[in-house]
Amino acid sequence: MNQLELIARLKPETAKIDAAMRQDLASIDSPRLKEVLEYAIFNGGKRIRPLLLILAARLCAPQAEDGPGSGLYRLALAYEYIHAASLLHDDVIDHAESRRGRATANRVWDNTHVILAGDFLHSRAMWLAGSLGGVDCLAALSRATAGMVEAEFLQLANAEEMSRSRERYFAALTGKTGLLIAAACESGAIFAGAGDELRRALAVFGNNLGLTFQIVDDLLDYLGDEGKTGKAVGNDFKEGKMTLPLLLALETATAPDRARLLNWLAAGSAEERRLALPEAREIIDRARGFTTARRQAETLTKEALEALAPFTGRPELSTLKALTAYVLKREK
Amino acid sequence: MNQLELIARLKPETAKIDAAMRQDLASIDSPRLKEVLEYAIFNGGKRIRPLLLILAARLCAPQAEDGPGSGLYRLALAYEYIHAASLLHDDVIDHAESRRGRATANRVWDNTHVILAGDFLHSRAMWLAGSLGGVDCLAALSRATAGMVEAEFLQLANAEEMSRSRERYFAALTGKTGLLIAAACESGAIFAGAGDELRRALAVFGNNLGLTFQIVDDLLDYLGDEGKTGKAVGNDFKEGKMTLPLLLALETATAPDRARLLNWLAAGSAEERRLALPEAREIIDRARGFTTARRQAETLTKEALEALAPFTGRPELSTLKALTAYVLKREK
Repeated sequence: MNQLELIARLKPETAKIDAAMRQDLASIDSPRLKEVLEYAIFNGGKRIRPLLLILAARLCAPQAEDGPGSGLYRLALAYEYIHAASLLHDDVIDHAESRRGRATANRVWDNTHVILAGDFLHSRAMWLAGSLGGVDCLAALSRATAGMVEAEFLQLANAEEMSRSRERYFAALTGKTGLLIAAACESGAIFAGAGDELRRALAVFGNNLGLTFQIVDDLLDYLGDEGKTGKAVGNDFKEGKMTLPLLLALETATAPDRARLLNWLAAGSAEERRLALPEAREIIDRARGFTTARRQAETLTKEALEALAPFTGRPELSTLKALTAYVLKREK
Repeated sequence: MNQLELIARLKPETAKIDAAMRQDLASIDSPRLKEVLEYAIFNGGKRIRPLLLILAARLCAPQAEDGPGSGLYRLALAYEYIHAASLLHDDVIDHAESRRGRATANRVWDNTHVILAGDFLHSRAMWLAGSLGGVDCLAALSRATAGMVEAEFLQLANAEEMSRSRERYFAALTGKTGLLIAAACESGAIFAGAGDELRRALAVFGNNLGLTFQIVDDLLDYLGDEGKTGKAVGNDFKEGKMTLPLLLALETATAPDRARLLNWLAAGSAEERRLALPEAREIIDRARGFTTARRQAETLTKEALEALAPFTGRPELSTLKALTAYVLKREK
């Protein structure tokens, strides 16, 4: 399945997820709250998390329910809602001004509306997970959301302590991205009534896919084409963020190269780092930071696909494989 | 049971709730997150919501579990957590500097830590409710948290539109305070395996108690003794907040009195309103705004106690009655 076929395959699913979401949000009384939520949710997102939940459920039980009104689609919304809630709160925290080429909700309204709208989605997500997926789905989602917060705290501590530990980097990455995607995949399996082994297999797949996604994000931040990604290149370095390519380069760079990187990070201002970006990129490249990060993403992808071995022969498998390939190779 | 006896009766329960909370928070990995949560939670709060849950459960099933490690006490934490989460987010929203005579968490740390800590508590609360109380408790808690957000949006709309509708005031009040206390009481009944009738009775009791609490708060804001409440008097009027005494006064005041109140509210600055407080208080008093608000609180309390009729003869009843009397008569 190539990328065009993948898009054609996923389009009707995405449409059903969106329809389910519109139905669900229709029950909200406050017109303003509805407005904020629709603005935050219908923003061209790819619906990766609910899609994965639905595909995982079909992988375990081919006869899984269908249609936007079904329990499966409504359960899947939980994962889009939690994702949207965390983006809303992140944008408040970061004083972000734009997302996906539009003004952020905190700029259109204000922090009050956005913090509360995030809380609403959070609560709604938990309710959907617990009522439609049972206590096991609720556990998976709660673990993931708690893990997301703990990961943010770890990242704050890493930044304060200038930690360059690969272990702590991966712990933060797992918490911030891996856990939620793992929980989405596992919840699909739970909904389909799968046993422990298949649940674990899908959780591993989801976690690895999430980590791959994030590492590719880190790479695109240094090497992406702004015309394609729609994001300014070099933002992570400018902010002094310790992402994988930089971390790996610090491990293997020559002493003078390493000293220059550390100097920019420890003593430089954001503006100095912005100006130093081309040079920093060369140093990271020389130290093979980009190549090694890419190789780690490839390994994670390989392990993700290996985890799906119990599903060999299932028709949904080709979709998940194509999706995995897309996550690894995407340029935006 | 007088107030001293009530305090003596509740003290061991509060100690067990606190012990359960410390046990529960011990599982958190991030030292900073734990620090923020402990600061926010162990702040001299009265633990009203978990206490009510536990008393409601005992009312329905005298043999209900005991001890801080029991499911009942852990379920009760959900309601303290949600309450604490909403205070954390409120303090960020209001840029609050102090709470209960201490610096707010957002001043000690920053908005990032506090928004995330609130999200953590929110998620933890949902997990405790769903896993220990089942889907009915999760439903009660989710309805309450969604209702809290909708009520905040309604209050924002009321303020923008200068709404003086008693109906909208009570709708906002129910969402902001009544629903959560109703859900706590109902969850106690659910945990104890009570049927629909007793569940509804306890929900009505909790809702009315919550409304009473809030109306007394509104009264103390105008008439309280700062030495006892620890809060500056007149804050609501200064902020132009439409609380019950003011709303009632606007309905019954003479035309010139009414015009003066409306002029302060619509055209005055916060500073002008601060200076006008003694005069505004006189106008509200003349229009019987305070007396009528107090009478409404008394009616709500009476209905709260009537809802407890099915429990006549139970020993826990005297505690709940004393608690209700305290909520109505409290001076701080």
